[in-house]
Amino acid sequence: MVRIGIVGATGYAGAELVRIITGHPEVELKILTSRSYAGKRFADIYPAMRNVVELTCEKYDEDRMCDLTDVIFTALPHKLPMEIIPGLVRKGKKVIDLSADFRFQNGSKYEEHYQPHTAKDMLAKAVYGLSEINADKIKNAELVGNPGCYPTSVLLPLVPLLEKKLVDPELLIADSKSGISGAGRSPLLSTIFCEVSESFKAYKVAEHRHNPEMEETLSIAADLPVNITFTPHLVPMSRGMYTTIYTCPFNNADEEEIHNCLKKYYQDSKFVRLLPRGKVPDTLFVRGTNYCDIGVKFDSRSNRVILLSVIDNLVKGAAGQAVQNMNIMMGYDEAAGLLNVPFPL
Amino acid sequence: MVRIGIVGATGYAGAELVRIITGHPEVELKILTSRSYAGKRFADIYPAMRNVVELTCEKYDEDRMCDLTDVIFTALPHKLPMEIIPGLVRKGKKVIDLSADFRFQNGSKYEEHYQPHTAKDMLAKAVYGLSEINADKIKNAELVGNPGCYPTSVLLPLVPLLEKKLVDPELLIADSKSGISGAGRSPLLSTIFCEVSESFKAYKVAEHRHNPEMEETLSIAADLPVNITFTPHLVPMSRGMYTTIYTCPFNNADEEEIHNCLKKYYQDSKFVRLLPRGKVPDTLFVRGTNYCDIGVKFDSRSNRVILLSVIDNLVKGAAGQAVQNMNIMMGYDEAAGLLNVPFPL
Amino acid sequence: MVRIGIVGATGYAGAELVRIITGHPEVELKILTSRSYAGKRFADIYPAMRNVVELTCEKYDEDRMCDLTDVIFTALPHKLPMEIIPGLVRKGKKVIDLSADFRFQNGSKYEEHYQPHTAKDMLAKAVYGLSEINADKIKNAELVGNPGCYPTSVLLPLVPLLEKKLVDPELLIADSKSGISGAGRSPLLSTIFCEVSESFKAYKVAEHRHNPEMEETLSIAADLPVNITFTPHLVPMSRGMYTTIYTCPFNNADEEEIHNCLKKYYQDSKFVRLLPRGKVPDTLFVRGTNYCDIGVKFDSRSNRVILLSVIDNLVKGAAGQAVQNMNIMMGYDEAAGLLNVPFPL
Amino acid sequence: MVRIGIVGATGYAGAELVRIITGHPEVELKILTSRSYAGKRFADIYPAMRNVVELTCEKYDEDRMCDLTDVIFTALPHKLPMEIIPGLVRKGKKVIDLSADFRFQNGSKYEEHYQPHTAKDMLAKAVYGLSEINADKIKNAELVGNPGCYPTSVLLPLVPLLEKKLVDPELLIADSKSGISGAGRSPLLSTIFCEVSESFKAYKVAEHRHNPEMEETLSIAADLPVNITFTPHLVPMSRGMYTTIYTCPFNNADEEEIHNCLKKYYQDSKFVRLLPRGKVPDTLFVRGTNYCDIGVKFDSRSNRVILLSVIDNLVKGAAGQAVQNMNIMMGYDEAAGLLNVPFPL
Repeated sequence: MVRIGIVGATGYAGAELVRIITGHPEVELKILTSRSYAGKRFADIYPAMRNVVELTCEKYDEDRMCDLTDVIFTALPHKLPMEIIPGLVRKGKKVIDLSADFRFQNGSKYEEHYQPHTAKDMLAKAVYGLSEINADKIKNAELVGNPGCYPTSVLLPLVPLLEKKLVDPELLIADSKSGISGAGRSPLLSTIFCEVSESFKAYKVAEHRHNPEMEETLSIAADLPVNITFTPHLVPMSRGMYTTIYTCPFNNADEEEIHNCLKKYYQDSKFVRLLPRGKVPDTLFVRGTNYCDIGVKFDSRSNRVILLSVIDNLVKGAAGQAVQNMNIMMGYDEAAGLLNVPFPL
Repeated sequence: MVRIGIVGATGYAGAELVRIITGHPEVELKILTSRSYAGKRFADIYPAMRNVVELTCEKYDEDRMCDLTDVIFTALPHKLPMEIIPGLVRKGKKVIDLSADFRFQNGSKYEEHYQPHTAKDMLAKAVYGLSEINADKIKNAELVGNPGCYPTSVLLPLVPLLEKKLVDPELLIADSKSGISGAGRSPLLSTIFCEVSESFKAYKVAEHRHNPEMEETLSIAADLPVNITFTPHLVPMSRGMYTTIYTCPFNNADEEEIHNCLKKYYQDSKFVRLLPRGKVPDTLFVRGTNYCDIGVKFDSRSNRVILLSVIDNLVKGAAGQAVQNMNIMMGYDEAAGLLNVPFPL
Repeated sequence: MVRIGIVGATGYAGAELVRIITGHPEVELKILTSRSYAGKRFADIYPAMRNVVELTCEKYDEDRMCDLTDVIFTALPHKLPMEIIPGLVRKGKKVIDLSADFRFQNGSKYEEHYQPHTAKDMLAKAVYGLSEINADKIKNAELVGNPGCYPTSVLLPLVPLLEKKLVDPELLIADSKSGISGAGRSPLLSTIFCEVSESFKAYKVAEHRHNPEMEETLSIAADLPVNITFTPHLVPMSRGMYTTIYTCPFNNADEEEIHNCLKKYYQDSKFVRLLPRGKVPDTLFVRGTNYCDIGVKFDSRSNRVILLSVIDNLVKGAAGQAVQNMNIMMGYDEAAGLLNVPFPL
Repeated sequence: MVRIGIVGATGYAGAELVRIITGHPEVELKILTSRSYAGKRFADIYPAMRNVVELTCEKYDEDRMCDLTDVIFTALPHKLPMEIIPGLVRKGKKVIDLSADFRFQNGSKYEEHYQPHTAKDMLAKAVYGLSEINADKIKNAELVGNPGCYPTSVLLPLVPLLEKKLVDPELLIADSKSGISGAGRSPLLSTIFCEVSESFKAYKVAEHRHNPEMEETLSIAADLPVNITFTPHLVPMSRGMYTTIYTCPFNNADEEEIHNCLKKYYQDSKFVRLLPRGKVPDTLFVRGTNYCDIGVKFDSRSNRVILLSVIDNLVKGAAGQAVQNMNIMMGYDEAAGLLNVPFPL
């Protein structure tokens, strides 16, 4: 059994990794680290896991991590991963990083929106882990920069259409809505129940750091520099992410052609479910799963295309896609460990 | 005291009218009608109202209604109002209708999206009750067609900017999100708790009947025929409506100019609160109030304007604006009965 | 592979059965029936199941059901099961019924609280499917009456203590709280989102039909006729059930003795997780699982024992326990298909 | 106009005081203090209050407070009020304290459950502000210790019945459920949205500090030392508190006698609404109001009385009752400022 370590296991994305890896048939969870909870049993932090996960969280130690594992997931805040990942990769470990540190090919883009990058030499090595789009590169990667949740929901519907030049790269607007788990597990005034319940609001309008991340991949797909207007919002629910994209058809594409393009692109995909024409997605239907459901609508009066996509921000938007990437890297079935039957509610 | 009747008092908008009228200093609630609950005490249907509202719901009877009241609110499904309102107006009653039946100046637009209109001769008489925009006409109206909730949230930020030609009438996209009370009080599979909780979804994408309603007023403001792409979504919360509008600046307008235009337009408004630059609205902050909060943001990278507006769909989006219109019609302070202090949560 | 049929597959308990059976390693789902949705694909009713469940719902037909299946789950409203189950059992099928029809050994108790029983002769054959307590009888049963959700949460903590005479059978009070899914999927005014959100309320106080069901098993455990005061409440959440039980220690039992009794009773149980002393359960920690978590507290000032138990009302309280019973009947591992890793949130 | 100051205005109870005082016809809000937000406009902390509350929070200064106000509300954590209130009372100010510091007549009880009391000499002066029970004493009080939310919900139904010896003081069990706002506005892991949603749980079982507070008043009512078993729980909603009380009838009292006793006791009460027999209360129906709704049920099978009471924890359970007490102290109508019409949802 391939041995797995999770660095930063007690945040929501880390805990979701623990859940998925625990149920994965090909790998074994060997070590969990946590800065805040070192010395505490994981099941005392997440009591749902009583009798299921027996590991105790540890402080991070590179040697011990390398002794115990073959593949390592890092689920840390930005900046920490670039400090520890180079050492792991040098020792031959495969690493999937859930932060932004290794998502950008273009280091200066990263530095413009985050901070100085202290491992820029590794960026060329790192593959952007958008599984459905980059599977070929991921297969041989040693280091994967796992995509942000918003970019995943924006890119999966848009990339195929931009590649085929069926939508206008000059009019791209993404209006996204995220469940509260996207804000993480640290207590903040803005995430306490009474401030969230009955509250819907935008935040970081046109200033979110996932914006340049999207644009890097959109530009590759369109084969020209692309801007996208992006507004994230918070929805009073725990999990789920909804993105409504507004664009215009290109080259006289109609609804059928657009729908067919996506159908063809994702015909063998295990996780992208293109909805029949006329259907719209719903966060409830992908909750706790690695699916991305996509709907297509035309506004014939104004000749605009509306794309609607939905993911679970913690699964396809984080831990699930990370495991999917591991599966691709290790040559397992891409869906191993990820096909838990969805809950009806 | 002016005497008030409410036709259709037991739906959510009707009950909200009961709440506001009960606390209104200038008027007295005399009669409530209900098709489903005739013969039942209102406080047995809405037990929050025990000891507060003593009226019993009655079947609608035109003569009795006219004997007992001076001003009548109709909160019925589309089609019913156009059957009863002509009789009331003929008898000299002032009527504020919360359905779509008297919102359109253009009867054929109504018929295209609803059904044959049986009181078309009254459309010219009816005033579209968007209080801040049409106050002058409302003042002398006998019949007001109270705006839909979505149009209210879309029109208040856009009308001033279109009138001043500061935004592009050819690129208007409104992405709206509504609390569940917008779907009414009739039990539906789509509104039961377990189907709503953890669910966010679009519906009637580019097909909602509020779309032509918006366009009628937008076209007047822009002084040319205007299309708007409109996508409504449902948020797992009871009350509140959020609209994110995407457009482009016109005539080299920048964020300051746009902000100033709205500031000037609403400087004396009691209910439109233009937020300081950099702030975004939140449904929680207008819950249970007649306020419309508006925020303005620029996406300088793509040169787009993002307008964010928020209302309580049952208050400024329905019953509150209806009472505001009554206040204007009757010459009361526009805010009478509507200045309950907001709840902090 | 043993072949499975589900009668009444489109209610919440039925759909949860579909979920669990679909992921079960030993059995195969062959047929789903539904009165309301015959002819519709299950995945169109529960779109979460797209690409996962390919069956189409059918009208119930006894011959077809018997041809296609070995084991049948009935998830129908009370009264319907007693009409169809006798025919199935006569044809040698094993049946697990989720209604109340076969829960009572005492037919007249059933008739007192429900309606005339038309298959009373089968009651003696039927085994009450409280898995942890009745496993020996379930093993050889042809027909299992699967317990109600409230009784499951009340009986698991109380039965061992009554058997060992550690608590007073004359002071038994159960204050239970259920998520809204317990009310089923039919749209009701009382279950629509706006009536549930911010609402907590008791219902059927001291009149709920699960009350006599509990008492039958409690009386067996105590070996004397036992009354329990029972108040169910509704909590604004989808899934989960919490029961707080008040009783008195007997025979000078103290907290440790009570805790030890439960510890011993459930030491080999895969699904009852007795919490360490001082810990209390939380519905979130059993959501989507077949676990029942139990906490024990003493109120030394008033010398009372407080037992706290928690289940997912749709899993251990319905479909999960039904599958657990099937596992026992068929000689599978009791936990087969039921050990999905819990979600951290 | 009587001038009001609020010390600790930015917690939830403080903000609720701001809301109520702002709408109160007889008094004027002059000064707000806050330890965390001194120098910030109140409306920037609670943006719902834009255009409504113009005050800026200040650091607490006794002289300034005394110069500007006649009546002072203190909404601070325990321990702080006993440090500042003696100075205010000495200067002739009337004070209503929302903490536990002045709730106990018995100083050693306080010290047993809280900490050393540094103003014990004032305890005799302080009146326990359970408005409906202690109005006569409150009338002449200079200092009121405003009751806890749980005690309010427990005492209002029980005190009249204990006084009349209609229920057994030896069997008193209160199972209470509170909305999350009871935990305050400081961000805690246990109050962030994702840990609360779909979570129902008990806490501080038989150890809550409101337990001795209840017992002091219950013992006075029963005229003997009384113990009550008390279990608080948290409900995933913002506001509201539900208490289910289990006791036994005394002196052969039946449901009618118990109901009549409460009816008579509260016949002139403006805020206690005794429900008709057979009805149970619901938190939604008192949300945002100062009402306490009470229901009475009998379990004839076990001869027990079940009392169900409901309040808004922030209004009748805190700020509303505090203002009610001020009204009594100042000789205003007891309901002044507290009769906002309830919301239907």
